[in-house]
Amino acid sequence: MKKIEIFDSTLRDGAQGESVSFSVEDKLNIVTALDRLGIDYIEAGNPYSNPKDAEFFRRAGELKLDHAKLVAFGSTCKKGVAAQEDKNCQALLDAGVHAISVFGKSSLWQVQEVLRAELQENLRMIYDTIHLLTQAGKQVFFDAEHFFDGYKDNPEYALQTLGAAADAGAYKLVLCDTNGGCFPEEIREITAIAATAFPGKIGVHCHNDMGCGVACSLAAVEAGADHVQGTYTGIGERCGNANLSTIIANLQLKKGYSCIPAERLGRMTETARVISEICNIPLLSAMPYVGRSAFAHKGGMHVDGVQKNTAAFEHIAPQLVGNHRQILLSEVAGRAALAAKIQEIIPDLSKDSPQMAGLVDKLKELEFEGYQFEAATASFELVVLKELGRFTPFFAMELFRIIGEQDAADRHMASAMVKLRVGDRYEITADEGDGPVHALDRALRKALEVFYPSLAGVRLIDYKVRVMEAGKATASIVRVLIESSDGRNTWTTVGVSTDIINASIRALVDSMEYKLYRDMVLKN
Amino acid sequence: MKKIEIFDSTLRDGAQGESVSFSVEDKLNIVTALDRLGIDYIEAGNPYSNPKDAEFFRRAGELKLDHAKLVAFGSTCKKGVAAQEDKNCQALLDAGVHAISVFGKSSLWQVQEVLRAELQENLRMIYDTIHLLTQAGKQVFFDAEHFFDGYKDNPEYALQTLGAAADAGAYKLVLCDTNGGCFPEEIREITAIAATAFPGKIGVHCHNDMGCGVACSLAAVEAGADHVQGTYTGIGERCGNANLSTIIANLQLKKGYSCIPAERLGRMTETARVISEICNIPLLSAMPYVGRSAFAHKGGMHVDGVQKNTAAFEHIAPQLVGNHRQILLSEVAGRAALAAKIQEIIPDLSKDSPQMAGLVDKLKELEFEGYQFEAATASFELVVLKELGRFTPFFAMELFRIIGEQDAADRHMASAMVKLRVGDRYEITADEGDGPVHALDRALRKALEVFYPSLAGVRLIDYKVRVMEAGKATASIVRVLIESSDGRNTWTTVGVSTDIINASIRALVDSMEYKLYRDMVLKN
Repeated sequence: MKKIEIFDSTLRDGAQGESVSFSVEDKLNIVTALDRLGIDYIEAGNPYSNPKDAEFFRRAGELKLDHAKLVAFGSTCKKGVAAQEDKNCQALLDAGVHAISVFGKSSLWQVQEVLRAELQENLRMIYDTIHLLTQAGKQVFFDAEHFFDGYKDNPEYALQTLGAAADAGAYKLVLCDTNGGCFPEEIREITAIAATAFPGKIGVHCHNDMGCGVACSLAAVEAGADHVQGTYTGIGERCGNANLSTIIANLQLKKGYSCIPAERLGRMTETARVISEICNIPLLSAMPYVGRSAFAHKGGMHVDGVQKNTAAFEHIAPQLVGNHRQILLSEVAGRAALAAKIQEIIPDLSKDSPQMAGLVDKLKELEFEGYQFEAATASFELVVLKELGRFTPFFAMELFRIIGEQDAADRHMASAMVKLRVGDRYEITADEGDGPVHALDRALRKALEVFYPSLAGVRLIDYKVRVMEAGKATASIVRVLIESSDGRNTWTTVGVSTDIINASIRALVDSMEYKLYRDMVLKN
Repeated sequence: MKKIEIFDSTLRDGAQGESVSFSVEDKLNIVTALDRLGIDYIEAGNPYSNPKDAEFFRRAGELKLDHAKLVAFGSTCKKGVAAQEDKNCQALLDAGVHAISVFGKSSLWQVQEVLRAELQENLRMIYDTIHLLTQAGKQVFFDAEHFFDGYKDNPEYALQTLGAAADAGAYKLVLCDTNGGCFPEEIREITAIAATAFPGKIGVHCHNDMGCGVACSLAAVEAGADHVQGTYTGIGERCGNANLSTIIANLQLKKGYSCIPAERLGRMTETARVISEICNIPLLSAMPYVGRSAFAHKGGMHVDGVQKNTAAFEHIAPQLVGNHRQILLSEVAGRAALAAKIQEIIPDLSKDSPQMAGLVDKLKELEFEGYQFEAATASFELVVLKELGRFTPFFAMELFRIIGEQDAADRHMASAMVKLRVGDRYEITADEGDGPVHALDRALRKALEVFYPSLAGVRLIDYKVRVMEAGKATASIVRVLIESSDGRNTWTTVGVSTDIINASIRALVDSMEYKLYRDMVLKN
C-alpha cells in the first residue's frame, strides 16, 4: 500500500474561515486530537505574523506527540531582503519545530501584478529562504501558491519556482490551487507533469470553491502526488479547504492507499466531532463518512432495503470510520423502522408483541401531532419508557406562568414563575430572563436544583424552533428542539404545541427528566 | 452552447434529508423560486405514497409557471401486477402533470437480493409501467436506480434495463449512483458507454457520500449526459444530493454549457437563500458560489491581493451569480449591492449622496444585529422610508403585556393586552389565543381596526422563527419572519430580538404598517 502523507492545516488555513477563532488552548487540544488519529503533519500557525501563534509554539513543547509533527508556516523573505536578515525567516527558525512550510508565488501573473517583483527576484526569494532553513537542518515544504493558475498562464515559470525550491533542498513541493478554480482533470494533468519533473516530491493543496476540493485532491494523488494538504473538517477561507476526513476515507477504504494507521480509522468520526466542538461550529450533519446523517436512512423504501441487506443503500460499513447507521423516523418511515429503533432501547421487546404494536401506534400518533423524533432521541427514549411503564417521574409540574412586557420606549422584560412537586414537597420560585423561554428555563432549573443538585451542571447548547402548517400563521403548531449538555454527554429533546411557551416547557422538562434518568441508570 | 437540462429534486429526494419537512405551502413556494430561476424540471413528490404530496398536486394547478415543468415521482408497477392495475401507476396518471419520473432497479444484484424478483420480471415491470405512461401521452424519465453499481456488477443486465425503458418510449434514461459510492472517473467511463448506446437520452443523478457529487455530475456531462438531477442546495438523504447550484455555475460559467437562461444567473444566490429559508435550514455559509462566505476574505494577504486585483483570489466575479465579495471584519462589504437595492425603492436617490451612505450604514448595522432582508422586503422598504423621513407613522405602540399559564393538568392559556395611540386617541384592549404570539396578534389587530378597518382583511399566512448564535441557547438572538396577505398581495416582514415575543411584535407591527402605507400610496 502506497503511503500518502496527510498534512492538516485546520489551525492555519482553517483559522481563515468565517467565525473561526482559536485560543492557544483550543489549538493544543486540536493538535492532540489530530495526533491521536495519526495525522502526519499539523500546520499550527505563523509565528511571525500572529502573536497568539508565537505563544502557541512556545507552549507546544508541553505536548507529547505520538505520531504527528508540528509545522510552522511563513512566507519567503521579502523582496530585496536577504533571507538571513528577514524577520519572518528568523521567526520560523526560532519556532522550535523541525518542519516548516514556506509559501511563495508560482504564478508569473501574480508575481508581476500582486507581488510586483522581478521574476528573477521571486526565484531568489524562494531559493534563499528555503536554503537558509534546510542549512539549519529543517524539513521544508514549499507551498507553491497559485501554482495551477500559474501553470495555465505560463508553465515554464511555474516549474522554475518548483526548481528553485527543489535546488534549495525542499522536502516537498506543494502545488496549491489557491483560488479553488481548477477542475479535477486540470489538476490531474498538471500534477502529472510536475510529478514527472520532480518524482516523489509533489504534494497538493486544494480549495472547495467549485465543490470539487475532494475530487481534485484525489486526482492529484492518482497523478503522482504523495502528500495531501487540507483541513480535517473542511473549514477554511471562502468555501473551505479540501476536506481531509473525506479524502482519507476515500483513499484508504476505496483506493488502497495508506494515509493513517489502519487501526485508527475507527477514530475518524469522533475526531471530527471533537474538532467541531472545539471550533464551536456544528459539524455538518451531511458530511461524508463522519457526519451524523452520513448513514441515516429515512425513505420507507430505503429503510426496507437496508434491513434486507446493509450494502443495498450503504457504500461502506459505517463502523469502519467509527460512525453508525441511523434509522430516521418520519412520516415516510414505516412501522418496521420504528420497531427497529425501539429495539435499540428495549432489546427484549419482540417485534410482534402487542406492546410493540401499541407503542408504534402511540409514536405514529405523536408524529401526526407534529412530533419529530429523528433528532430528539432523548424524548423518543422517554416516550418508550413511559409507555411501557418503565419510567418513574422525578417531579410534577404544578403551575407555571410567564409574563412579557414592552413599553413605548421599546424596553422589554420577561419573567416566569414555576411551582413543582417532588413527592409531597412543593417548591415555588421565579426568575427573569431574555425572553419568556429563557426566564422559564432559569426558574425551572432553580426550583429543580433544590432537589437535584446535579442539574446545576446541565446547560442548554441549542434551541431550535420550527413552525409547521403555515397558513394558520401564529396559531400554527410549533415544534421546539432543545439540545442539552452536562459536559460529558449531549442529548436532544422535543416539545410540540400550538403555544411556543408550552412546546418549550415540554422540551425543557424532557431534558431534565432524561438527565435524571440517565444518572440513575448509571448509578445502578 | 450545448443545453444541459436541469432537474431539481429538492421536494422529493431533498425531503429525505434529516430534519427536512415541507408543508404544502412550503412546496408551492419552492416551486415558484425554482421556476423564477429557470430550472427545467421540478420533481415535486410521490402522489401515491404520501397524502401530503397528493394534496400538493391537487393545488399545483394554481401555480402559473413561467419556465419549469412539474414532475410526479413513483416506482414501477409491483412484481406480478399489470401496470394498468397498479395503484401507484394510476396515481401517477392521476397527478395531473405531463412529466413523470419512474424509478426501477438496474442492478442485477439488487433485483435478486432486495427486490427478490426474476430478472425478466423486473424488465417487464419497467417496460409496462413506462409504456402505460407514454401511451397516455406522458413524458417519462426512467430513474435507473443503482445503475453504476449494477453496471460494475453486471453490465449486460444494467444496459438491458435502459433498453426496456427506451423501448417503452422513455424520454430520458437517468443513471443513478444511488449509494453515492462511485468516483468521478467511474461515472465518466460508464456514462460514456451508456451515452454511446442511447445517444441524446442520458441523464445522471449523483449523491455526495464521498464528497464527489458535483465532480461526478460534471464527469457525466463531459461523457455525454445532457440532463442532470440533484437538489438546488444539495439537501438530501445521508450526505445529500449533487448540489445543483454548484453544478449550474460550474457548467455555465466555466465549461460553456447552458443550464438556465443566462440573464437569470444573477438570481442564483437569492434563490439558494429563499429555499434555505423555506426549509428552515441555514444555508451553508461555505457553499460554493451562493454561500455567504463564498467570496469572503479574511487573511490580510488575501484582502490586500483582492484589493489590488479581484482576480488575485477570486475564481469568478461574485456578481455573476448574484453574490458579493465580503471583506470580513470590515464594513465595506456589499455597499454597492445595498445601494442598488435602495435605488429600486427610491430611484431618485443617487449612489454617491450622503443620505445613501447613512442609509447603507444603518442597514449594515441592522444586519449585524441579525436582521436579514433578503426575504423580508417589506421591512427593508420601511427601514429605507423611515431613515429618509418619508414615512409618517400610522400608530404608536404604548404598551403590551402577555401572560402565559399552564397548570398541573397541562391546560394552558395565553392572553395579551395592548395599548396604542393614533394621533391623540388611545385604544386599550386585550385578547387571548393559542400561545402568546397569537394572542398578541389578535389584540393588536383588534385595537388597530378601530382606526383602520381595512386591516380586518389582513391575515398572517406564515410565521417562521430562526434562532441564531447556537451556544447561548434560550438567550440567543431570535429572528422572526412573518408573511401576510390581504387576499391580493403578500408581503414579508422581519423582527429581531433576544426575546421571541419582542421579535414577533416588531414583525407584526411592520406588517400592519406596510399594509397601511401601501394602501395610502395606491389611493394617492
